[in-house]
Parts: sequence; C-alpha cells; structure tokens
Amino acid sequence: MSGNSFGTLFCVTSFGESHGPAYGGVVDGCPPGLELAAADIQRELDRRKPGTSRHVTQRRESDRVEILSGVHEGRTTGTAIGFLIRNEDQRSKDYSAIVDKFRPGHADYTYLQKYGVRDARGGGRASARETVVRVAAGAIAKKWLAARYAVRVCGYLAQLGPLRIAFKSWDSVGENTFFAPDPSAVPELEAFMDRLRESGDSCGARVNVIAQGMPVGWGEPVYGRLDADIAAAMMSINAVKGVEIGAGFASVEQKGSEHGDEMTPEGFLSNNNGGILGGISSGQDVTVSIALKPTSSIRLPRRTVNAKGEAVTIETTGRHDPCVGIRATPIAEAMLACVLIDHALRHRAQNADVEPPMRPIAGARKPLGDR
Amino acid sequence: MSGNSFGTLFCVTSFGESHGPAYGGVVDGCPPGLELAAADIQRELDRRKPGTSRHVTQRRESDRVEILSGVHEGRTTGTAIGFLIRNEDQRSKDYSAIVDKFRPGHADYTYLQKYGVRDARGGGRASARETVVRVAAGAIAKKWLAARYAVRVCGYLAQLGPLRIAFKSWDSVGENTFFAPDPSAVPELEAFMDRLRESGDSCGARVNVIAQGMPVGWGEPVYGRLDADIAAAMMSINAVKGVEIGAGFASVEQKGSEHGDEMTPEGFLSNNNGGILGGISSGQDVTVSIALKPTSSIRLPRRTVNAKGEAVTIETTGRHDPCVGIRATPIAEAMLACVLIDHALRHRAQNADVEPPMRPIAGARKPLGDR
Amino acid sequence: MSGNSFGTLFCVTSFGESHGPAYGGVVDGCPPGLELAAADIQRELDRRKPGTSRHVTQRRESDRVEILSGVHEGRTTGTAIGFLIRNEDQRSKDYSAIVDKFRPGHADYTYLQKYGVRDARGGGRASARETVVRVAAGAIAKKWLAARYAVRVCGYLAQLGPLRIAFKSWDSVGENTFFAPDPSAVPELEAFMDRLRESGDSCGARVNVIAQGMPVGWGEPVYGRLDADIAAAMMSINAVKGVEIGAGFASVEQKGSEHGDEMTPEGFLSNNNGGILGGISSGQDVTVSIALKPTSSIRLPRRTVNAKGEAVTIETTGRHDPCVGIRATPIAEAMLACVLIDHALRHRAQNADVEPPMRPIAGARKPLGDR
Amino acid sequence: MSGNSFGTLFCVTSFGESHGPAYGGVVDGCPPGLELAAADIQRELDRRKPGTSRHVTQRRESDRVEILSGVHEGRTTGTAIGFLIRNEDQRSKDYSAIVDKFRPGHADYTYLQKYGVRDARGGGRASARETVVRVAAGAIAKKWLAARYAVRVCGYLAQLGPLRIAFKSWDSVGENTFFAPDPSAVPELEAFMDRLRESGDSCGARVNVIAQGMPVGWGEPVYGRLDADIAAAMMSINAVKGVEIGAGFASVEQKGSEHGDEMTPEGFLSNNNGGILGGISSGQDVTVSIALKPTSSIRLPRRTVNAKGEAVTIETTGRHDPCVGIRATPIAEAMLACVLIDHALRHRAQNADVEPPMRPIAGARKPLGDR
Repeated sequence: MSGNSFGTLFCVTSFGESHGPAYGGVVDGCPPGLELAAADIQRELDRRKPGTSRHVTQRRESDRVEILSGVHEGRTTGTAIGFLIRNEDQRSKDYSAIVDKFRPGHADYTYLQKYGVRDARGGGRASARETVVRVAAGAIAKKWLAARYAVRVCGYLAQLGPLRIAFKSWDSVGENTFFAPDPSAVPELEAFMDRLRESGDSCGARVNVIAQGMPVGWGEPVYGRLDADIAAAMMSINAVKGVEIGAGFASVEQKGSEHGDEMTPEGFLSNNNGGILGGISSGQDVTVSIALKPTSSIRLPRRTVNAKGEAVTIETTGRHDPCVGIRATPIAEAMLACVLIDHALRHRAQNADVEPPMRPIAGARKPLGDR
Repeated sequence: MSGNSFGTLFCVTSFGESHGPAYGGVVDGCPPGLELAAADIQRELDRRKPGTSRHVTQRRESDRVEILSGVHEGRTTGTAIGFLIRNEDQRSKDYSAIVDKFRPGHADYTYLQKYGVRDARGGGRASARETVVRVAAGAIAKKWLAARYAVRVCGYLAQLGPLRIAFKSWDSVGENTFFAPDPSAVPELEAFMDRLRESGDSCGARVNVIAQGMPVGWGEPVYGRLDADIAAAMMSINAVKGVEIGAGFASVEQKGSEHGDEMTPEGFLSNNNGGILGGISSGQDVTVSIALKPTSSIRLPRRTVNAKGEAVTIETTGRHDPCVGIRATPIAEAMLACVLIDHALRHRAQNADVEPPMRPIAGARKPLGDR
Repeated sequence: MSGNSFGTLFCVTSFGESHGPAYGGVVDGCPPGLELAAADIQRELDRRKPGTSRHVTQRRESDRVEILSGVHEGRTTGTAIGFLIRNEDQRSKDYSAIVDKFRPGHADYTYLQKYGVRDARGGGRASARETVVRVAAGAIAKKWLAARYAVRVCGYLAQLGPLRIAFKSWDSVGENTFFAPDPSAVPELEAFMDRLRESGDSCGARVNVIAQGMPVGWGEPVYGRLDADIAAAMMSINAVKGVEIGAGFASVEQKGSEHGDEMTPEGFLSNNNGGILGGISSGQDVTVSIALKPTSSIRLPRRTVNAKGEAVTIETTGRHDPCVGIRATPIAEAMLACVLIDHALRHRAQNADVEPPMRPIAGARKPLGDR
Repeated sequence: MSGNSFGTLFCVTSFGESHGPAYGGVVDGCPPGLELAAADIQRELDRRKPGTSRHVTQRRESDRVEILSGVHEGRTTGTAIGFLIRNEDQRSKDYSAIVDKFRPGHADYTYLQKYGVRDARGGGRASARETVVRVAAGAIAKKWLAARYAVRVCGYLAQLGPLRIAFKSWDSVGENTFFAPDPSAVPELEAFMDRLRESGDSCGARVNVIAQGMPVGWGEPVYGRLDADIAAAMMSINAVKGVEIGAGFASVEQKGSEHGDEMTPEGFLSNNNGGILGGISSGQDVTVSIALKPTSSIRLPRRTVNAKGEAVTIETTGRHDPCVGIRATPIAEAMLACVLIDHALRHRAQNADVEPPMRPIAGARKPLGDR
C-alpha cells in the first residue's frame, strides 16, 4: 500500500491535484446495506467548502460529488465506492509570479527535490484541497458509525491564533462559519481575522474532535493501537504539527494520582486518557486535539531562494486561507471517523465471538478538559 | 498486517508478555551486507534496561538478546532477522492483590472487555516491557542509517513532571541515567524522584528526539507522510499521549511570517517545521517531542471497580517505574529510527532515478527551540 | 488494504461496475519522470476492447480513458495517477429475464449470499469489464519496465478449447484478433468459434505470458515470492482456474536430472523453472501459463434455482464473449507487468547498494516449451 | 509488509535458516479463547517431520515447538502467538563440496545475485525446512476453523512422478507415510522410490488439498479473491510450479455447458469451480491441486558454473528428500487453512450484519474429479 491510501479494512485511496481536472477517491471495504446518497457526502463537503465567508479562500468551487460505483438502489453493495469531484476554478496564472521560487514553510521545495518535477500550480498534490477526498470518505464512515453503533464524531475550533474559545455547546458549532462552540466569541474572531487578512499574514489554530457513544474494545496492541492510528490520521492532514489524545501534553505535569481515571460502578470519574487505554477504546469519549500551523502562502515579503539557489524575495498573492484551521473541523472529524470504522471492523473480525465479561463502565460526565 | 507489526518495507513484528517466557521480534526487509552483531543490539538494550538506578523499576532483567536468523558471518543476509530476549524475573505473585481489580489508567480493563480474557500478571501484552523489541529493532535501523546515510538519531529527557531541563549538550545525555541534556540538573531530578517515590505517586515526562544529517526527500504524500508515520510510531509507545513535530502546539499562536522557515543560499534560518514539509523531509533535523503520562500503577489508594463491577480500592505494590519517561529516550529513538529506515527504503524504491535538481539547502544552525 | 487494491509499492486500486456510470482506477507509487499520455494507455485498452470481431461480445464501448491526476506536462509526477473510463453501452434490460435466477458457474449467487444485495445487471462488480482497469494500470507498468529495464511483457493465445496453437512468431500475435502466434491457425479458430456461437455454448482457453529481458534478483523469500505474487495476480483475473510457472504441471512427471536447468558460462541450457528460482528472478524469461474457464453466460438452457430456491431453467441471452480467453492476452500481460514493476521497486528499495558478485548468466535460447 | 509475512488479519511471520540455531514464527490476529497447547501444533509438525521413512531426508530433527506468547491458561489471548523450533542436526560440512557452485534448479544463484551474500549451508533461507513455520501456523488455523465453523482441511498425494494414485478414502491417507489415499498403491510407490533413490535422481509430485464444510461468502472481489490468495499461498511453497482450483487446466477443453456447475434445490450437481465463484466461496468443497517439481539437489552429475562463472560439474550428496512432494501434504493443508481463516475474519469484519437471503445450496456429492 503506497502513500495515497490509508486504512486496513475500510481503505481510502485518494488522487487529484489542485489545478488538474478533478479530485477523486475510492472507499473500499464499506459494509453493504448502508443507505447512501450523494447528498450524504455533499452535506459534509459543503461544511468544508471554500468561499463560505470572507475569512477563507475565495476560490469558487461548488465541490459537487459524483458517486461512480459501489451504491445500488440507494444502498452500498459492499464493493468499492468510487467518487469524483471536478475542479472548477483553477487559475494557474495566479502562480506565475512564484513559479521558480520556494514558499517558506511550503512543500514545493521538498516535492521538487524528491520527485525532480515541479507542479507549482496550487501546490499540486500538496494543496489543502486534497482534503475534499478525506471529507467525502469520512461522510460514509460517519454515517455507518452512527447507523450501526450510534457513535457520533464531532469537532470544533478551540483556538484561533492567540484566542482561546471556551466550549459552550455543540449547537453553536454549526451556527457559525468558524465552527466555534461559543457564539459570543464570533465577533472577536471576525475582528481578529479582518486585521490578520489586512496585514497580509496568517495564523495557526487548534481543533478538538470527539467521538461520542464509543463501545469498549476498538483498537489493537501494540503498534496498531487506536491512538496510534488516530495520530497518523491527524498528522497526515496538511498543516498539522501536533496531536494530543486526552490530557495530551498536560500529562507531563500530572501526577499518577491525578491522571489515572478512577472508576466507580456509576462510571469513570474523569477522562484524562481520552477514551483510550492501552491502545483500546475504554467506552469513554475519544478526545483528540490538533495543532495547525499558519498558512505558508502569505502576502508579506519573505526571504527565500529560487530554483537556481539564489537569494530572492517572495510574496504569495493567490487565493489562500489566512487560517487553514478555520475549515479544518470537518476534515479532522472525517479522519477520526475513518479510523474508527476501520477499527470497528478489525475488532469484530477478531473478536466477534467474545462476550465482554462485564457491563461497560459509563463515561465521565465531563469528557473535555478546559483546553 | 495485524497490530503487532509495523513498517512497510522495514517491517518489525513483536511478540511476548511480561510474565511469559520471552519477548522476541522479527525485523524483515533490512538491507543485506550490514555489519551486525548481538553486541550492537545489546548496547541499546542496556540503555533502556531496568534497574540502572533507584529511580526506575527494580525488576532484575539482564535483557540478553539472541539473534536467531538473518545474520551470517557478521553481516545481514537480507532475510528476516529473528531475535529473542528471555524474561528472567517474572514474579507473578506480585499481582495477586490486584488480580480482580482494574488499575485506573491501565489497560487491564480494556483488554478484558476486548478479548474476554485476563492475564493480570504484569499487564500481559500491555506491559511496558514490550519496548525491548522496539529498542532491538531500532538498534538495527540506527546502525544502517548511520552507515548508509550518516543519519544519527538521538534523544533526551526534556521535562520530568514540572521540571524543565534545558538542552546543554549531547554528551551529558549519555552520562546520567535520566538522559538529561544538562548535568547540572541531575541533583534536582534525583531529589524530585526520591520525594515522588516516597509519596507512592508517579509523574509524567517529555522526551525530545532528533534525527540529524537527514537527506531531502524521505516521506510520501498524502497519508504516508513521514510525520504521519512518526506520529503513529510515537503514539504507539506505552503512555504516550501527545506528539509534536517541529514547533508543534506552539504553531497555534504563531503567525505565518514567524512560522514559515525562511531559506537563504546559506541555509534555512529556522526549523519550525521540524525538518518535514508536506510530509517529506526537508534536509533539516527532524525534531519530535512526546508527552508521556504518569505510570498508572501506583501505591496510593485509588477508587476503582473489580471484575464484578463493585466499588473497591486499589493499591499497586509491584515493581513499577515511578516515571516511565525516564527510560523512554532509547525507545523513542528506536521508533524514529525504524520509521526513517522504512521511508529511506520507500523513497529510493520510487525515486532511485531522480537527480535532485538543486543543491540541498543546509539546515538551520539551531534546530531545537526552547522547549 | 482491502480487496480492490493490489501491489505493495506500485499499488493499483480499482472501482466500477458493468452497468454503472464508469470504471476507474488509481495507480499509486509510479516513479516520476516517465513520459505518459492517455494514448499510451489507450493503445492497450484498444487491444482488449469489445467488438473487434464477431467472435467477442458485441457490446459497443469506445473505452476512452481520461487521466485525471499524476501527470504534468507529459510526465508522471510521482503522485497518484487517477483515471476514468466511462461506460457507454449499458443495456440493463438484457438482464431482466435472469434477474432472479442464478447462472451456473457465475458469481451472482455468491455475491448475493455474501453481501445480501444483488445487482444483477451485467454481474455488477463481477463483470469481466472490470479488467479495463487492469489493462490501463498495466500499460503504465509496461511502459516503465521497457523504459527503465528494457523488460518487455507479451503474451498469446496458446489453446482455444481443444485447439492447440503452435508458437510461430511474436509478429503474428498482433496481426489477428485472437492473439494467435500462428497466422495459419486463424481460419480453423474462426471456424471453431462460428460453430460454437451457433451452438449457444462457450469454451475455455489457455494464454501464455512471457517477460523478456529480465534482470536477476526481483522477488523475495518466502511468502512475497515473485511467483507467488504472479500466481495471485493471474488467479485474480475473471475465469482463471489454473496458473503455471515454467514447466508447471509437467514438472510432476519430470526427473530432477531433467527439470533442473543446467548452467554453462554461455548460459542456461533450458528454462523449466520459468525464470524464477526460490521466488527470485533468475534473469531467464519469466514464463507463465493460465487456464481460463468457459464463459458461464450461455444461451443453452441449464438447470438452476431462483432467489426463492426453486428449481428453474435459465438461458442467458445478453451480449457475452463465447470465449473470454480470446480477449485475455492483454489482461494477463497487464497483470504480469504490474507484479514485475512492484518487485522491481521492492528489490531496489532493499538492495540498491548490492553489487551482484557475478556477471549474469544468459537465458536459454528457447524459453518456451511445446505447450 | 515485507516478504516473510502473509495474511491481512491472521498474519503469519516467519524467520530462520536451515543451518542457523532455530526457526520461529509469529501468528498475529488469532481470535482469543481458542484452546491451544503445544501438542496441537506438535501433532501437525510430526506429520511433516523428516526421517519418518527411508523415502525422505534422513536429517534428524525432533521439531519440538515451544510456544512463547499469546496463550494463557490453555487458551489464546488474542495477542501475538510467538513460537520457536530449534534446529538440532545442522551438518554444515555436508555442503563443503558445493559451496562455490550453483545447483541447477536451486535458489543459491538467485540469492547470491540478489543479496550479494551466500549462505550455502542448506540453502539458507531457501531451505524447505522453512515450512515448519507454515505447518505450525496452519495448525492454529485448522483448529480454529474446525472449532468455530466446522471447516476441515485435508490433503493427499495424488501423483508421484508418473504414478497416479486414485482416491479411495481419507482414512488411508493417515495410514501411510506417503499420504496416499489408496493403501493398495503403497507397495508400488515404495518400489518406485527405492529405484529412484538408487539412481541418484529425484521426481515431482502432485498434491490435492480440500476444505470441507465451507460456508458461503468467504473471499473478496476483485484482487483479494479467495482463489487469488490460495494461489499465492500455494505458489509460495518451495518447489511448487502450478496451482489449480476446481477443474483447473481441464477447463481449457471444457464447454460452458459442461463446466458451469448446475444448481438444484437439492444441491450443486458438480464442482468444476472448486468451491469458488467470482473469488467468493460457494459453500461447496474448496478443491486445490498443486504441482511440485523434483528436488534440485541430486547425486547425479550436472553441468553448472562456479562463483567465478567457470564451467564445472556438481553432484549434491547432502541428506535431501528425493521427492519433496511426499512431505508436502501437511504443508499445503497448512497454507490453505491460513488463507481460509484470514478470509473468514475479513468476511465477518465487513459482513457481520448481513443475513444471507437464501438457504445455502448443498455441495455436490462428488467434490473431486478423477485427477
């Protein structure tokens, strides 16, 4: 299996470039009998779509998905689900000014040196636009997880640059284009983004993703751990530089008497472990937090070299998100959902005959920390 | 490939339990012709061995490795390298008091519910002792990386509980049992550990790992990214709850004009990206930081349930590391080395015929931030 | 990796159904810099296209391929190559008469029982039309093997039902629609097929495939053997029931003194091993022979059951090949080429630094037996 | 996954060389709760053991297996099962006469050229002795298949050199060291082998393997077909040059009206498809037939070259099986069992929620043809 596929049993394969004719993907291993229509995928694609506000890229893409196989009379057949999303707004000319320079923090230098080929238009394969495929695959995963196990995957923007956003409610997440869980924070976020855009700079973000309603037992020792696969899935998202499960880096300063989640017949008393113990889901909410770096394509002038290795200055004027983290929530959800369905299938493959000896212990009431 | 193997071309398979007769592993895909003796592996095993100081578990294990195949007349043959490490000090009786209770923060609850089977002795497969296999495999990876590409993988303890340890020199790392990069910090670390042990509690830690001398081009878009595989490898280590590459979570508050590493003909000016751009190595040092949670087996009484689901109190009195992070440095190095050799092989498989168009840009002088 | 992908480094993923909108595929891991145009793929697709003579299915498909990614300015970029082939002539009504019956020898019974879903139109995913994807992927593999290693993969029809076809020349293979290596045999083949079609029955075939110009060393012990991967690739083609390498089943009656290919400084004296020793290519021609069963969809009435399990009679009147073997030559070539490029990449990943100690021994002059 | 592992969910990894200290393996993914003792594995190892008659190699190996992990209190735990079989009778001196020559038909030439290393002693990794690992893994697979699905895997010697052996009864297979299904054939087989041994030559064989009691639905379209994985598994056995499923190469001369297995409410009327339709098990017996070439190490003088490429003569006088096919029956059974358990797990992973719409159709009464 090469680098454009992931998953053992629920296997996602992706292709496409930002300025080519289309992106597409194949979801292999989806259980049969799941009700599935293009609209199920479209709903998720619309959540990550460009152009939903002035704070994201103004590239115009309707991101219409076409299902090409694996669905018959409204249900999955168990065979490979192929789908396609045509690119509509590829303005290659936007890139003419930077075609022989390397953007600091961007992959164009490493791609060129690795492959000996440069497709400068929109970053080619390294474009964040590739995440349409993840979101489409994740839509299928989410639907099955909900239908079969009542597992729900959802996320939100936890921090925008220096601005931390308190968690108020899931409802508010869907009501603003930032995926912010606190409606009262939105004006401040908008003001911040307006200043940022004006300055020609970009900023980072933190996104939290949660899986609720988890059964006990998904995950495998010792390298195929659920948390290991989540970490890979998250780190494979463009711009992600850090992944935490549960208490994450806060564990460093915790004592064992504080970190280890106590159990009572009524349930766990905390969720520092983020719903995973020994690489296996504990039945508590799986809680994941990721760090996204600031966009590397910015208008501010920066020192770099050109293809001849000479010192030059670069200013990137294409249509870029000043904060890729704003649209990252549905992407992170999709990746988590894909990992979970894969482990759900792997778990029942091996352990379909196991009767769990105990009644499951309920999750802690307050799954999220203050992060 | 099931959960006890990892790697695409340099593939490591692990078996063994803490209280069974032995641990062992198979390294498949190692290039032939590498000089290799048991002593090469032993040196690394001795670095993670228990009992090296009063601050780690007092279990007595000589951790002698026996190479069973894949080496002929002192060189690897290209076939599978099998090796064995016998357990010597398995005191199952230590566990009699906890055999029907679940340790908060430990995997015994999830293993039981997943597999319907409980092997309470030493945590069975979930024991941190499994990391001998990783260290043995990593020793082979390290040796090849150094011999073939002059890549050197090394790590250190960056934080012990609340105590941050400044990076002074690589030399000092090898001179104390904490893997601390500052010899002057050791007395404080020792005092802290003495108090911790006395209190019956445990603590977390942060470990940093670096790969120096990296070529450009290792890694693959888009799911098989070098950073994605590193994240999985690190998160698969027992007790790890967070992984950062480069600036990691600090990226959240950075501006693009600060984060994106500028390039000049003389080299990169910073290394916020941690040596990886677009999932592909940039030739700068690869810098990784991990958070390890405090050990879950502690002497302090904690609330939990027993196998009948009844409320009970547990105190764990076995021989446990009060801070698993202390011995984690060689383990994290091993995992990084295994990922790097795998990607080195994958890269040359596809791109052996590519002549990188440019002279590589040198790494930044100061690869590590202040973390 | 689920069932619709194959290959470790050169990885092919396939989707599509006979009566859906399109077939498509993704080739991941192709080396960069290879000159590639849609015409390169089209040429191979045209060789397997339906409707080239009265002896194959009369379904009208132009089988136009569209490359969607992975190629820039006429060269592969090293990223995933996505491609699409739209279906044009899906007449679902052809299947109305058999929609609730099972064709003897066909997969519709097993698909229904496995997935609980029936897509009777054209056999859904089990249609032989899926092989367009294989041929497209194989075209890329063939081009690289020829360009990089001067390896040439070619095949021919060795037997049609009871009629054995002597090997005369490679030139004649391309000059008739049977891929027969003897032009003088064609009239007899045509007469046989005319009688067969008239009778409403179908027949089996044998196809031979050869790789010429092979280097020594491709393949891996012990499960990842070159011959094992070839066997899987061939047996995965619809209708294939047997695979032979070299002398194949004739080895059963050979003596060791006859079978083992003697070596001299001038070269091997025979090629009973079919170019593979211990799972590794010997530098002789790789010779593979496959058995294809007769098409299961025939006009003659046959006993079967319907979806209620009742005894019924079935006659299949759709547009089916009376001998799938006739169009199988380009498909078998494609599968062999895909396996070879995968092993070429795997070999150089591990052994790029090996200098073969000896000058290669030349292949036998007469690679093919009398089969 | 590199070449010394196979299987997606039930994954077998093998290591060891003929003249090293031991062979061993890891079985990963076995369901928990299966009763398993070393004796279960030993029984199968004893069936393939050398020295059981004068017709096989006289190397003395007790082939004692030690289980090192994955079993607790007599049951599998769901974690990796490691096992070891020490070599006892490694006479390296036997090989001194051939150490710089290449045996015609043997892998020593290809290994040397691939890896640049030669371990002439016993063929190193290419030794047929590696099959102990397969048989050990297969013993676990067989036990689970029988316990969970009442599937039974069994085989027999169908042809020894020119001597075809009619199938009389399964009982007789276990009562002679040839695994011959007809006791009356044994004296002729013995006489043939005595003459062969005396002549210094070797011979080929055909072995048939059957899986009885199969459920419908194991296998996957289109590359992960059950028959494709069986073909790979069989072809990966040393000396195998051909694999057939069901009618195999006889399909070439069959008509569709003859080959396609008719169905009635009482059951299938024949089994030309060998229990697999469209890559998915049909519920009929899975029937597989393999061709094994004659042993390449023979006493008769043969032309070859030495490591300098010079023309020499070779006579191999070590302790070799004059017909490797005689001991191949338990090996082929093991490989089939490993493929079946893997697909059983893969099937229920994806399709655990499918209720097969029809009552299964019974298998044909006479599963085996006259071969």
